[in-house]
Amino acid sequence: MRNTNKVKIIPLGGLHEVGKNLTVVEYRDDIIIIDCGMTFPEDEMLGIDVVIPDVTYLIKNKEKIRGLVLTHGHEDHIGAIPYVLKKVKMPIYGTPLTMGLLENKLKEHNLGKVDMNIVRAGDKVKLGKMECEWIRVNHSIPDSCSLAIKTPLGVVFHTGDFKVDFTPISGDTIDLHRIAEIGKKGVLAMIGESTNVLRPGYTMSESKVGETFNRIFAAEQDNRIIIATFASNVHRIQQVINAAEDYKRKVVLSGRSMLNVMETAQKLGYLKVKKGTLIDIKDMHRYNDNELVLITTGSQGEPMSALTRIAFGEHRKIKLTPNDVVILSATPIPGNEIDVSKVINKLLESGANVIYEALSEIHVSGHACQEELKLMFSLVNPKYFIPAHGEVRHLQKHAEIVEQMGMNRDNIFIMKNGNCLEISQKNAKLVGDVPSGNILVDGLGIGDVGNIVLRDRKHLSEDGLIVVVVTISKSEGKVISGPDIISRGFVYVRESGDLMDDARKVVKSTLDKCDSKSITDWSALKTSIRDDLKGFLFNQTKRNPMILPIIMEI
Amino acid sequence: MRNTNKVKIIPLGGLHEVGKNLTVVEYRDDIIIIDCGMTFPEDEMLGIDVVIPDVTYLIKNKEKIRGLVLTHGHEDHIGAIPYVLKKVKMPIYGTPLTMGLLENKLKEHNLGKVDMNIVRAGDKVKLGKMECEWIRVNHSIPDSCSLAIKTPLGVVFHTGDFKVDFTPISGDTIDLHRIAEIGKKGVLAMIGESTNVLRPGYTMSESKVGETFNRIFAAEQDNRIIIATFASNVHRIQQVINAAEDYKRKVVLSGRSMLNVMETAQKLGYLKVKKGTLIDIKDMHRYNDNELVLITTGSQGEPMSALTRIAFGEHRKIKLTPNDVVILSATPIPGNEIDVSKVINKLLESGANVIYEALSEIHVSGHACQEELKLMFSLVNPKYFIPAHGEVRHLQKHAEIVEQMGMNRDNIFIMKNGNCLEISQKNAKLVGDVPSGNILVDGLGIGDVGNIVLRDRKHLSEDGLIVVVVTISKSEGKVISGPDIISRGFVYVRESGDLMDDARKVVKSTLDKCDSKSITDWSALKTSIRDDLKGFLFNQTKRNPMILPIIMEI
Repeated sequence: MRNTNKVKIIPLGGLHEVGKNLTVVEYRDDIIIIDCGMTFPEDEMLGIDVVIPDVTYLIKNKEKIRGLVLTHGHEDHIGAIPYVLKKVKMPIYGTPLTMGLLENKLKEHNLGKVDMNIVRAGDKVKLGKMECEWIRVNHSIPDSCSLAIKTPLGVVFHTGDFKVDFTPISGDTIDLHRIAEIGKKGVLAMIGESTNVLRPGYTMSESKVGETFNRIFAAEQDNRIIIATFASNVHRIQQVINAAEDYKRKVVLSGRSMLNVMETAQKLGYLKVKKGTLIDIKDMHRYNDNELVLITTGSQGEPMSALTRIAFGEHRKIKLTPNDVVILSATPIPGNEIDVSKVINKLLESGANVIYEALSEIHVSGHACQEELKLMFSLVNPKYFIPAHGEVRHLQKHAEIVEQMGMNRDNIFIMKNGNCLEISQKNAKLVGDVPSGNILVDGLGIGDVGNIVLRDRKHLSEDGLIVVVVTISKSEGKVISGPDIISRGFVYVRESGDLMDDARKVVKSTLDKCDSKSITDWSALKTSIRDDLKGFLFNQTKRNPMILPIIMEI
Repeated sequence: MRNTNKVKIIPLGGLHEVGKNLTVVEYRDDIIIIDCGMTFPEDEMLGIDVVIPDVTYLIKNKEKIRGLVLTHGHEDHIGAIPYVLKKVKMPIYGTPLTMGLLENKLKEHNLGKVDMNIVRAGDKVKLGKMECEWIRVNHSIPDSCSLAIKTPLGVVFHTGDFKVDFTPISGDTIDLHRIAEIGKKGVLAMIGESTNVLRPGYTMSESKVGETFNRIFAAEQDNRIIIATFASNVHRIQQVINAAEDYKRKVVLSGRSMLNVMETAQKLGYLKVKKGTLIDIKDMHRYNDNELVLITTGSQGEPMSALTRIAFGEHRKIKLTPNDVVILSATPIPGNEIDVSKVINKLLESGANVIYEALSEIHVSGHACQEELKLMFSLVNPKYFIPAHGEVRHLQKHAEIVEQMGMNRDNIFIMKNGNCLEISQKNAKLVGDVPSGNILVDGLGIGDVGNIVLRDRKHLSEDGLIVVVVTISKSEGKVISGPDIISRGFVYVRESGDLMDDARKVVKSTLDKCDSKSITDWSALKTSIRDDLKGFLFNQTKRNPMILPIIMEI
C-alpha cells in the first residue's frame, strides 16, 4: 500500500521544445492534466497545419482523468483541446478569459457539449484526491495563473507562463504573497517555465510600451497610425486604445482573430473602451487620417494576415500612403524573422514610416528573465525542480541557475516528453517512459500524415515528378500504348521538349530490352524504368525527380 | 557629343536584398562590373540550389565590358561568376585571396581558361576610359577592398563590405588616409554598403573575439575544444590557431570548405601556422582531449555540415563527450535561427558545454555600424549617394543618416535592381530600367525553373499528388483498363484503403457519366475527373492534392 503512495509527473509536451504544453500530474487513481497546447509545424513538416501532443497515455487512462486545468489562453496551452476532446472527454477548468477563448475555439470545431468550469485566481477545485489552486501571475494575456496542485504527498507547483510586472496595465501584480505562503508551507515539486532563461536581468513592464505609444502619438499628430500586435495581447491593445482616446482618435480593428479576441475580452470586461471609440472598418472613410488608429493582426508576417495584405497592397479596405505610421509591436518568433522583414520592407516601399523593435521600445516580452525566475524559485523553494517550457538549452540553463542558488543537482530533473517522474515520500526518480511525440494535423486528418508521406512531399517539393505510363497487353506482353511521360515541378516542359523526347526514348529502350527478355513481372519492369530514367535525368540535369512508372494491363 | 558624356550606374543585384551583388558602371563604350555574387534561395524557391542575378544587360553589351573587378571573396560577391562566365567572357581583377578562392570555384565548375588578374590594395588598373583602384578595408575575410573607379566625369566610389578595425588581426587597418585623399579631391558618386546600418555605435574589433578565446582556453584546460565558424573568416581561424599554439594544442580542421579555404589561405600567406600545429583528422586519436582544438564548418546549422553531423552523432571521426566544449563563433544569418538552435540543443544533449553568442562575446560582425558608416561617408564626401547592400529598410535608414549629415535629399538615390542612374556634369537622374531579377539554378539548369515549376512544387509539397490513369479504346470510346489511382504524399495509403476505394468509385461514376454522353474530348474528360475527385477529396480530408488525370488511348 505504501508503494502506491506516489505522485507521478509526466510531461507529454513542452519539454525540449517551446509549444504543445501538456503535463500530467497523477496520484494513484487520479489524473490532473495541466494545459493542452498545440505547436506550429517545423519547416520540414510540409503541408501540416498544426502539431499536437501524442495523448495515447490519456486515452489509456481516461477513467482516471479528473480534469484539465488551464494556466492561460495562449494557443500553445489550449490549442490542442478540440483535437484531444474528440478522443477523451473531460471537465475543463480555467479563468474567464481563458475559457472564453477556448469556447470560441470549440465552436469553430463544432464540438458539442463540453464540461466547462470557470474559476478565478484564488479559487481551489477538488479533483479526486488532489486539489488545484489558481494563483494570479503577469503575462502577455490577462487572466494568467500559476497552479498549485495539492497532493497527499505535498504541493506540485506549476508556474505557467509568467513575468513579474509591478506596474501592469489592468488587473493586479502577480500574487507574490500567496506564492510565498505556499512556498513557506513547503512545496514538493516545482515545474518552472524557462522561455527567457537565457536573458539576464528583468523583463520590462508592459507599461513601458504605453510610454512609447504616447511619444509616438504625440509626434505623429498628422498621420494615420497602424499598430500590429498579437490579438491575444489584450493589455497591449488596451494601451493603444488609451492612447487613442487621449489623442481623440477612433480605433478600427482589423483581422479575424483580432475581432474575435476583442469581442470576447470586451464582453468579459477585460478591455475598457469608451463608447464611440471603436468604429467599424466600413465607417473609416468618414474620418481623416489623423483621427484614426488601426489595430491589426500580422505582427509575425503571417502570409494571410491583415498587415501582410496591407503591406502588399492586397487589403480591400486599407490602402497605405506616405501619411501612415505603422508600428510592429511584437518581436519575431524564431523562424518568422524573414517573413517579418519582408513585411517591413514592403511597408517602407509604400512610403509609410515603420517603427519596429530594432528601432524603438515598442514591445516587451511576457516571460520572466533570469532575475524573475530566481525570485519565483526562491519563493516557491521546492524540494524537487523540473525546468519546463523550453528547448534543451533553456532547461539546462534553468537547472544551472537554481543549482547556483543552492539546490542539490540530484533534485533537479531535466525531463523529456514522455518521461515519468515518480515522487515518493523518500525520493524522486525517473521510472521509464509513456508514449509521446508529435501528432500531425493536416486538414481533417489527425495523425494520418507520417514519415512516409512527409518524405514523399519533400522529394516532390525538391525536384518534382515524372509519371511514366504504358499500356501493356497481358496476353502478348506487348506495349499497346505509350510510354507517355508527364512531368510536374521538374522542368518547364515547353522549353524542354528535347529532354522529354529523349526521356521517352530511354523508357522505350528499357521496354524493348525487357520485352526481348519477355519480362512479365511488372514490379521488376517498373524498377528498370525507374532506374534507367533516373540515371538519364540525373546525368542530363543533376536533378532527382520522383519517378512514378505506371503499367496499365489490358 | 556632350550628350553622351555620362556615367551610368546600374545595380543588377544587391539592392532591396542582401545577396547577389553586381553593379555596372558604364561610361560611353566601356563597362566595368563590380562583383558578381550569388544568393541562397528563399524558402518558397523549392528545390533551388542557388540564385544568381539576371545578366541579360551584360550579354547584350558584352563588347563593352572591360572587366569584372572584385571587392572581396565572399559568395555574395563572387558566387555567380562561374554561371555568368558561361554566357559572357571577361577579364577578372581581384586581390590574391579573392582570386585564390575564385580559382577553386572555377575548378569545381570545370571552367577552362579564364583571364585572371591579381591586384593588390593600392593598385590601379586602366579599363577602357576608366580606371579602377583598390583600397584596403577591414572585413570578415582578408584582402577586402573598396573600389575607386575614376571616370572622365569623376570618381565612383564603391565601399564594398567593410568595417573600421583599428586592431585587426593580420594585415592592416582600413586605408583611411587614401580614402580621405580621394574624398578631398572630390567624389562624384558613392555606393555605400548598408548591412549594419540599423545598429548604432561601432562594430567591435575582431581582436575582441581573441580575448574571449583566450579566456575560454584558460578555463577549459582539461577539455577538448571544438570551434565552428565561417571557413572564409581567416582572421577568426588565425586567432583560434594562436590560442591553440599558446596553450600547446594541436589543431584539426574539419569540413570540406574549411580545408579548401585554409589550404588557399595558407598557400597565399594569409594564415600563420607553426609547423606541427595542424594535424590530420586521422591522427587525432594520438592526442588527449586537452591537447586538441577542432575547427569546423557548420556555424549556421547547415544540415550536411561537419558540426551538424557531430551534433547528431553522424560524424564518422568525431564523437562528442561531456569532455567537449563547443564554441559557435558566428551569429545565425536571418532564416537560419531554427537550424542553429537545433544544433545547439543537440550538442547540449550530448553533455557537451556549448558557448554561443547569446552567452558570450564570441563573434563580431564584419560590417560597419552607424558611426563607421558616418565616418566613411564623411571621408568620401560624395556629390551623389547610393545606399546599397541591404533590404529596403537598410537603404532607407542609410539615406536618412547621410541626410542628417547634411546631404541634400535630391542627391540620394534609393535604387532598385535594374534601375539606371545617369550622371552628367549637370545632374543625376534615374532614366529607366534594364532587365534584372532572380535566375534560379537547380542542378545543371540555369533559369529553367520558373514560376510554373515552383508553383507545382509548392502544390505537391503541401498536399501531395493523386494520379488517375485510365485506358480508353479510341474506336469505341470505352474504358478498357482502370481507373487506377496512385497517390504520393497525400495520405498513408495502407491505412486509407477505404478512401482510395471511394475515390476510384468517384472517378468511375465520372467516366460513366461521360461515357453515356459519349464524350471523346479527352481534355474535357480530364477536367471532369479532376473536378469531381477534387471535390470529393476536399470534402473527405480538407486537403487539395494535385490531381493528374492521364488517359491512355489504344
